[in-house]
Amino acid sequence: MTRFTVWAPDADKMTLLADGEKIPMKPEPEGWWAAEAEATDYGYLIGDNTDPRPDPRSRRQPDGVHGLSRVYDPSSYEWQDSAWTGKQLAGAVIYEMHIGTYTPEGTLDSAIEKLDHLVDLGITHVEVLPVNGFNGTHNWGYDGVLWYTVQETYGGPEAYQRFVDACHQRGLGVIQDVVYNHLGPSGNYLPEYGPYMHESGSNTWGASVNLDGEQSDTVRRYILDNVKMWLHDYHVDGLRLDAVHALVDHRAVHILEEMSEETAALAAHVGRPLFLIAESDMNDPRMIRPREANGTGIDAQWSDDFHHALHVNLTGETTGYYEDFDSVGALAAVLEQGFFHARTLSTFRGRTHGRPIDLERTPAWRLVTFAQDHDQIGNRATGDRLTATLDENHLALAALIMLTAPTTPMLFMGEEWGAKTPWQFFTSHPEKELGEATAKGRISEFAKMGWDPDVVPDPQDPETFTRSKLDWSELDEDAHARMLRLYTRLIALRKELPELTDPRFTDVFVDFDEDARWIVVHRSGLDIAINLGDADVTLPITGEVVLATDAAADLTDAELLLPAASGAIIRRAV
Amino acid sequence: MTRFTVWAPDADKMTLLADGEKIPMKPEPEGWWAAEAEATDYGYLIGDNTDPRPDPRSRRQPDGVHGLSRVYDPSSYEWQDSAWTGKQLAGAVIYEMHIGTYTPEGTLDSAIEKLDHLVDLGITHVEVLPVNGFNGTHNWGYDGVLWYTVQETYGGPEAYQRFVDACHQRGLGVIQDVVYNHLGPSGNYLPEYGPYMHESGSNTWGASVNLDGEQSDTVRRYILDNVKMWLHDYHVDGLRLDAVHALVDHRAVHILEEMSEETAALAAHVGRPLFLIAESDMNDPRMIRPREANGTGIDAQWSDDFHHALHVNLTGETTGYYEDFDSVGALAAVLEQGFFHARTLSTFRGRTHGRPIDLERTPAWRLVTFAQDHDQIGNRATGDRLTATLDENHLALAALIMLTAPTTPMLFMGEEWGAKTPWQFFTSHPEKELGEATAKGRISEFAKMGWDPDVVPDPQDPETFTRSKLDWSELDEDAHARMLRLYTRLIALRKELPELTDPRFTDVFVDFDEDARWIVVHRSGLDIAINLGDADVTLPITGEVVLATDAAADLTDAELLLPAASGAIIRRAV
Repeated sequence: MTRFTVWAPDADKMTLLADGEKIPMKPEPEGWWAAEAEATDYGYLIGDNTDPRPDPRSRRQPDGVHGLSRVYDPSSYEWQDSAWTGKQLAGAVIYEMHIGTYTPEGTLDSAIEKLDHLVDLGITHVEVLPVNGFNGTHNWGYDGVLWYTVQETYGGPEAYQRFVDACHQRGLGVIQDVVYNHLGPSGNYLPEYGPYMHESGSNTWGASVNLDGEQSDTVRRYILDNVKMWLHDYHVDGLRLDAVHALVDHRAVHILEEMSEETAALAAHVGRPLFLIAESDMNDPRMIRPREANGTGIDAQWSDDFHHALHVNLTGETTGYYEDFDSVGALAAVLEQGFFHARTLSTFRGRTHGRPIDLERTPAWRLVTFAQDHDQIGNRATGDRLTATLDENHLALAALIMLTAPTTPMLFMGEEWGAKTPWQFFTSHPEKELGEATAKGRISEFAKMGWDPDVVPDPQDPETFTRSKLDWSELDEDAHARMLRLYTRLIALRKELPELTDPRFTDVFVDFDEDARWIVVHRSGLDIAINLGDADVTLPITGEVVLATDAAADLTDAELLLPAASGAIIRRAV
Repeated sequence: MTRFTVWAPDADKMTLLADGEKIPMKPEPEGWWAAEAEATDYGYLIGDNTDPRPDPRSRRQPDGVHGLSRVYDPSSYEWQDSAWTGKQLAGAVIYEMHIGTYTPEGTLDSAIEKLDHLVDLGITHVEVLPVNGFNGTHNWGYDGVLWYTVQETYGGPEAYQRFVDACHQRGLGVIQDVVYNHLGPSGNYLPEYGPYMHESGSNTWGASVNLDGEQSDTVRRYILDNVKMWLHDYHVDGLRLDAVHALVDHRAVHILEEMSEETAALAAHVGRPLFLIAESDMNDPRMIRPREANGTGIDAQWSDDFHHALHVNLTGETTGYYEDFDSVGALAAVLEQGFFHARTLSTFRGRTHGRPIDLERTPAWRLVTFAQDHDQIGNRATGDRLTATLDENHLALAALIMLTAPTTPMLFMGEEWGAKTPWQFFTSHPEKELGEATAKGRISEFAKMGWDPDVVPDPQDPETFTRSKLDWSELDEDAHARMLRLYTRLIALRKELPELTDPRFTDVFVDFDEDARWIVVHRSGLDIAINLGDADVTLPITGEVVLATDAAADLTDAELLLPAASGAIIRRAV
C-alpha cells in the first residue's frame, strides 16, 4: 500500500482517485489529507470537483501536466556513482545545456551520448535548463508547473537519474536550473489546492509565490523539499535558482537563507559539497555572503555585468541595458571588482544600482560569468549567437577574456565550437489561445523595438524549435574544429596555471587604453593582453607566450606586438 | 641539472655540497643563493662552516635529520587517484592514526593493508600524526625538524604518496597533522640559515617561529609553501594544525588567515575541497569564522571542552583542567553550545576563558570532538586508554555520546574495538643527554602530581614504543568484536539519519537531571537518552528504538526505562 498525502487546507473534503477508484481521504493536522491505496495512476478530487487534478508533488506525468500523476519512487533506481564525493564549485567550468536542443533526439538519454565531448573539453559541471514538467512537447523550461516531475518528453525521472549517474561516472558535476519565482501559464493547479500564490504580491510573471503570507510555512516546505529532491533523490550537486529577485519574501529569514541552511545540513548528511547559484539582478553582495557573515548564504550568483561589458566591447551594441557598458573601462571594472554597477548609476534602470563587493575577502568564483547564455542569445529577436555578429578573431577574444577571468566561467552549449545555429524562443503550448497570445506578445514586443514582425520567429512554429537544435556536423568544418581547440586549450590552461583560477580579486590589476582599445589583465605571474581595436598595438610586456589567438602576435625582449583583434597570455619575465 | 636554491640572508658565502663536490653558490635577490648541479645527495656549507647541513626544504633524509638531503621529485609518482574529487569535512568521521604504532611494522605501507578496516568501520578521513622528519627511529611526531620530509622509518615520501593514493582509492580522505609552532629538540639547523626563530617571542616549546619579525615574509613562505606541498604534491585533503595558540604573530593578517586564503586559492586550482583544522586552546569563535565573516578562515577546530565534559562524566576524574566539568550540565553545555568555557571562569586557568559561538549561524561540524585522542591518552602518566578505567557499558556510552553529537567526531586508533593497549609517551633520541633529560623531565613531572616514578614508563625505553602498538589480535575476542560492531553501527547511523549530522546547534535541545544523572539530547526527530547514573531511570519518551546499548532498555507506550549506564537512540513518536 502507498500512503498518499496532500495539502489542501481550505478544502472541505478530498478524494483520492486511485487507478479509477475513488477513495475518501482523511483530514490530518495542519491542512493535510491522507489515504492509503495500491495504485499506479492517481489524482485528487478537490471538494466536490469531479475533475481529478495532478498531485502537486507528482513525480511523473506520463500524460502531460493536466493528466493523472503516476507513482514513481526514485529510490528504486540503482545508482552506479557510489564513488562520487561531489564536485565543488570553486574551480568550475560550467556548461549550460538545454536537453531538448542539445541533441537531435532532445532527450536525457541522447544527451548522455554527448557527455564525453564535455569531458574532452574540460567541463567540470553541466548545468541543465529546467526539466520539470511543462505543458507541451518542447519549451525552454521556464513554463514548468509541476516542480517535482521530470518532463516526460525528456525521458522522465528515471532517465534523469541515468543522466546524473552518467555525468558522475565521467567526473562531471550536475547543476539543475530550478524556478521558484513563478509557475507556467498552463497546468498550475496549485491555487485550487491552497494558498500557494500570494494574494497581493506579484512579479514579472504575475502572481508571486506565497512565501510570507498566511500558511506560507507549508508553501516554503514545498520549495525546500523540492530542493532536497534534486540534491538527495537525484544526486544533483548544485542548483541554479532562477531570477531570485522575483521571490517576494519579507520575512526576517529569507527563503534563500533557509534554503542555504537546509542545503548545508543536507551536504553534511550526504558528505559531499552541495551548492546554490542564484540568478540575481540585484548586484547585492549580501546574496553571496555566507550565513556566518550575516549573508544569505547563496554560494554564487550570475553576474550579467560581465556579459554586458564583454558583449558591448566586442559587438559595439549599446542599446537598452548595454548603454552604460560602452567602454574598455567597463570591462576592466568587471574583471577587477566583479560588479560594474556597485552603488553607481544604472541609466537603464534610472537609478543607482548595486553595492561593491568586499574585494579582499570575497572569492571571485562566487560570480558566474559568461560571454553567452540562454537568455542573452534566446532573448534576442532572432536568437542569434555571437557567431552571427563577430568574426573568428573576435570570438576568440570572447573565449580568452571569459576563460581567463578570476570568476567562474560558463559556456552556452555549442559556443565551444562557435555554433552557427540560433537558439530561439520556442514554445509548444497545446492551447491554441495561449499559443497565439505567446507568439503575438513576443512579436509585438520586438516590433516596438523596430523589428520587422516577419523576421522574429514564431515561438509556436515547430521549426523554431528544430532550428535551435545544435548541429553537431558543424564540428567537421575546420573553423569550428579550430574554435573547439581554442576553448579546449583555454580550459586546460585554467587547470594548469594556478594564477587563472586564483579567486583573489586583490590579485587582479588591469591596465587599459580607452582610445587604442587594449586591455591588459595582470595576475600574479601572468599578463593577459587583449587588443580590442582594429589596429596593431605594442605593449611593454616581456616574458614567454603561453597562448596567442593570432600567430602574428610577436613577443620580443622589450615588447609585445598584438595584431588587431587578438590577445595573448604571457608568463611574465621575472 | 637540478637548480638548488636556499635562503641564507645573513651568510657571506654559501656552498653546495653535491654528491661530495663543493660548488660555490651565487647570491640572488632577497637573501637567496643558487647553484646548479647533477646530484643525488647534497647539503649546504653555511659561510666557512665545513659541516654540511641538510636543506631546510629537504624532501628526503635517508640518513636521518643530521645527514645529507636527498633529491626527491614528488611529481615522479604516478597517482592512481585521478577520479578523486576530494572529501569535504562536513559529515566527516575522523580516525586519528599514528603510523609507527598502527601496525606491528609501523610503516606507511603496512598501514595501507589496514585501510579496509577503516572503510568497513565507516571512517571518512584518516588523520595522520606528524610524519615529517624527526631524529631517531620512533616518535609521536611532534619533535619534527624537517617539515618538507617524510620520516624515512615510515617509508619516506614515496611511501607517503602510496598511502594517500590507497586512501583515495578507498574513498578515504587524508588529513595530515602538521606542526608550525616549534621545532624538535634535535636537528633544527634553521637558525644557522637565517632568522627562522623569533629573537624575543617564545612559547611552551622555547623560541617561537619568526612570523612577524624582520624578514618574516620568507619564514612565512617557508610555512605556506609547506602547506601547499601536502595539499598539492601529496594530494592531502586537509591539514590539522598543531597548537595554533602557540603561533606568535602580531600582524594584521595572521599567518593562519594567510594560510586559509592560500588554501582556498589552491582548492580552486585543484577543484576539490581542501580544509584546515586547528588545534586551538583559545575557545575563540573567530578562529573558525570564514574570512568573509572577518574571521581567520580556519574550517574547524578541536574542542577539548567536549572531551573534558565527557571524560569527567564517565570517569569521575576531576583533577587539573577537569575541575570545571564535574556536572551533567557541562556535558549538556558542550552539546548545545559547543564551547563550555564561553566567556566564563576557567578555574584551571585562573581567569575568564573563551567566547560564545554564534549558535544560529555556525555549523556544529566546525568543532572536532572526541572521547579520546593521542594527547588525552598519551599525556596521562601511563598512557592508559578509557578501557583501563571504564567497563564495557560506560565505553558504549562514550561511543554513543560522541557519535551522536552534532559536531565532527574523531576516534583515536583502536578505540573502535576498545583496545587495551596503552598509548604511551615514547621517544628515541639518539643523543644520550637529550634522551635522559626527556625521560627525567617526564618522570619528575608526574612525580610532582604524586605518581610513583617506577610506574611512569621511560619514554626512551624501546619497550614503551612497542607496548603502544595496536594489538590487532584483540579483534578475535568477543568483547572487542562487540565494541567494534557498536562503533560500526553508530557510524552507519550517522550516515543513515540526517538528524545526527544536522549541523544546526539551534536544533539541539538538552534535558538533564544532575542528581539522577540522565541526559536526553533532542534532535529534530530523535531523542538520544543516556543514563550516566548507577540506578535505572524512567524517562517520558515514546517512539521507536533505533539503537540501545543495553538489551534491557525498555520502551513502552508511555516511557523509556534505561538501566544504569546505558543509552538509546529513539525515533520520537509524532
